[in-house]
Amino acid sequence: METVLSYLKNNFNRFVDEFCEYLRFPSVSAQKEHKEDTAKCADWIANHCKNIGLDARVYKTNNHPIVIANTPFKDNKPRIIIYGHYDVQPPEPLELWASPPFSPRIADGKVYARGASDNKGQHLAHIKAVEAYLKSNVELPCNITFLIEGEEEVGSAELLKFLKENKKMLKCDVVMASDNGIPGLDYPGLTYALRGVAAMEIKVYGPSRDLHSGIYGGAVDNPAMVLCQILARLRDKNGKINIPGFYDDVRKLTSVERKSLARIPFNEREFKRFLVVPKLFGERGYSPIEQRTARPTIEINGITSGYQGEGSKTIIPSVASAKLTFRLVPDQDKDKILDIVFKHIKKICPPTVRIELIKGHSGDPYILNPDSPLCKAALTALKKAFNREPVLLREGGSIPIITDIKRILGVDTILAGLALPDDNAHSPNEKFDLRCFEIGMKISAILLQELGCALKK
Amino acid sequence: METVLSYLKNNFNRFVDEFCEYLRFPSVSAQKEHKEDTAKCADWIANHCKNIGLDARVYKTNNHPIVIANTPFKDNKPRIIIYGHYDVQPPEPLELWASPPFSPRIADGKVYARGASDNKGQHLAHIKAVEAYLKSNVELPCNITFLIEGEEEVGSAELLKFLKENKKMLKCDVVMASDNGIPGLDYPGLTYALRGVAAMEIKVYGPSRDLHSGIYGGAVDNPAMVLCQILARLRDKNGKINIPGFYDDVRKLTSVERKSLARIPFNEREFKRFLVVPKLFGERGYSPIEQRTARPTIEINGITSGYQGEGSKTIIPSVASAKLTFRLVPDQDKDKILDIVFKHIKKICPPTVRIELIKGHSGDPYILNPDSPLCKAALTALKKAFNREPVLLREGGSIPIITDIKRILGVDTILAGLALPDDNAHSPNEKFDLRCFEIGMKISAILLQELGCALKK
Repeated sequence: METVLSYLKNNFNRFVDEFCEYLRFPSVSAQKEHKEDTAKCADWIANHCKNIGLDARVYKTNNHPIVIANTPFKDNKPRIIIYGHYDVQPPEPLELWASPPFSPRIADGKVYARGASDNKGQHLAHIKAVEAYLKSNVELPCNITFLIEGEEEVGSAELLKFLKENKKMLKCDVVMASDNGIPGLDYPGLTYALRGVAAMEIKVYGPSRDLHSGIYGGAVDNPAMVLCQILARLRDKNGKINIPGFYDDVRKLTSVERKSLARIPFNEREFKRFLVVPKLFGERGYSPIEQRTARPTIEINGITSGYQGEGSKTIIPSVASAKLTFRLVPDQDKDKILDIVFKHIKKICPPTVRIELIKGHSGDPYILNPDSPLCKAALTALKKAFNREPVLLREGGSIPIITDIKRILGVDTILAGLALPDDNAHSPNEKFDLRCFEIGMKISAILLQELGCALKK
Repeated sequence: METVLSYLKNNFNRFVDEFCEYLRFPSVSAQKEHKEDTAKCADWIANHCKNIGLDARVYKTNNHPIVIANTPFKDNKPRIIIYGHYDVQPPEPLELWASPPFSPRIADGKVYARGASDNKGQHLAHIKAVEAYLKSNVELPCNITFLIEGEEEVGSAELLKFLKENKKMLKCDVVMASDNGIPGLDYPGLTYALRGVAAMEIKVYGPSRDLHSGIYGGAVDNPAMVLCQILARLRDKNGKINIPGFYDDVRKLTSVERKSLARIPFNEREFKRFLVVPKLFGERGYSPIEQRTARPTIEINGITSGYQGEGSKTIIPSVASAKLTFRLVPDQDKDKILDIVFKHIKKICPPTVRIELIKGHSGDPYILNPDSPLCKAALTALKKAFNREPVLLREGGSIPIITDIKRILGVDTILAGLALPDDNAHSPNEKFDLRCFEIGMKISAILLQELGCALKK
């Protein structure tokens, strides 16, 4: 292990250069104009894997390609799939970035770029750990397959198909993923639950074209007002989602869980200052950490209607629409939730407009028993890497594919996140701390060994 | 008069060509990129006035220029100012136009272009009537001044200054304007009241940047949701504006007025089909015509927040904003109303966000006694031009400058609109019926004579 860790230390500067090269691809999966950039990014990471001694291949899909890279397989060893995604969130609004999102900038030991933390930096740390084993000729404790997809930010639809069609090729003992976070560099953590997500769009159609608000205003409904009145009714003043049946399947937090979550460091004042909000807001009766990780939410991600340019335009807009996401918790079911939501919105929509409800990408929540041998092995590795006791975490974000992996491949996933709370994932000025990059490689190297042992037993 | 009317008839085809030339200028006052086009448009109409024998001048302002054109003045005659505006509404959304908004298209006896009805066609009809008097050497019954501004669609701020600074130069007996509508070609109408307008923008600021809705969602408020909840509370389910004090100064409709408005032809089914809405909506207790002309309204003209592009982006947006306008009726005061609205919004805004409220352009409502000699003269002219009894109308739209003219110049305005209900003013595919153009010139020619007589008395 010392040889492996030395290799990581000695080559760190080169790794940072490679990381920056990887970040230069604007691999925005949601935007058609970046289709080619996304493909080029997949080729780059596949070639990178080949160069360090992996057998890598790019699989074409109906949308963005999937990269598979294997270490030289030994028959008697357990197999681990390490999951990551090379696609990134749209960088907009561009004017809020201190430096261009696809021109990585290093400052104060951090790399600023879209995708730095979510997720290029995190899976590259694992690749570097494997490189260290291979290049320093230390035998790998397990067979490893990197599975790096290009659609995590848009719902992983093609990966889902790929898993179904390649069940045999992907047979493994456990999946490992780092696409989430820890409370701080002083708080190594293992995530045992993820929230799910259910996305939708609502379109409210009024008159067939924008109308002069003076000539027609007063006798015809305003689709933007109707949309506001519908959305306003979906969340009450206590932060509770106001949709009948929405909470029916929510698994209650046990008192053990609530105590464990309460151990995670949290300073409300600092958090408020970090977000720059005058006051926090969340579901009454739960702590901010519980609200963010163990309780479902409704969010308006975007809303649009009428004239948004300079000056004013005195119209009744013809149409108004909003993008919504619900974060879900165990044991909510994404499809059931969208059915409930659609039914309720249709019920409260007035007869003066026509509405259209469109399902978006979604994924079920995930939970892994914190007492399982896999969790124990991961906790041991974290303890060794950080030299301190790790905490158990729930993650507020969603990685829908983790549930799909469980359902299709029948295996659990170890979630060893490396992101820090201030990484600005999905926001302007996303960054990844180089200490996270470094310690991530170390965790990966040790964790591979621990899992190798745990799985052999 | 026969000579004048013959001239109009004989030169009509040329007038249509000139009208189309005038429509080719994208004189969008709200958009900075059209500043030069707007200036060119002012020059064009000034030169056009010169060519027909008027003394025309373009006055520079801090924004768009004002055109003044006088007939050769005779001392013993009353003076009439004819008001119009050469600026137009933004043409967006462009994709909904059947032909480009600034390439006039003639079909079925109608001219399709932005500004055709609002207001280039309407004031050009008056110019052509005056041309007919001048070119056929028939003595004009009054001295005439055209006052054509370039900021009607953005609040006429510069014209307001111009009126104040040039009170002496603009001393007159009455103002005449055609910037409104009639129920149909079979229903000549005289408008005796206009609604006012008060515009504002509301901005709701949440976190300092867009946040990952999974990582933070649940513990921080969503500015788009806050905005929806504020806006939703401003109008109740009966279509009444839900702001304390809003209706305090609304002048009640008299039973004579209600009877008069009930005489205007209106077919609810056809109106619904024309707007393509499943059901009309308006303030309970009032007819659609009353709702559209004699009752105040609230409209969301535009709303924007978060991600509006392709696909989805799972964020809590940092900011959400909306543009609102209130239509006002006599005796509401625009400034008092905005004060009331701001106070109420501040009161209902939760402490989890910061809001900013910005005043937009506004104008008071207007009312002219229908029994006044001016109104009687106008009704006589309309009766002669159409050969049928005109109806008395209230207009739902706002021409704030009319109230300013009354206040500053101390004179009333005759509102002889020529637009038809389906002209799509402020909407895609705006048009002006060539019959309206033709009859407009005729009304103007006769009305000038009638007013000349009425004012001499």
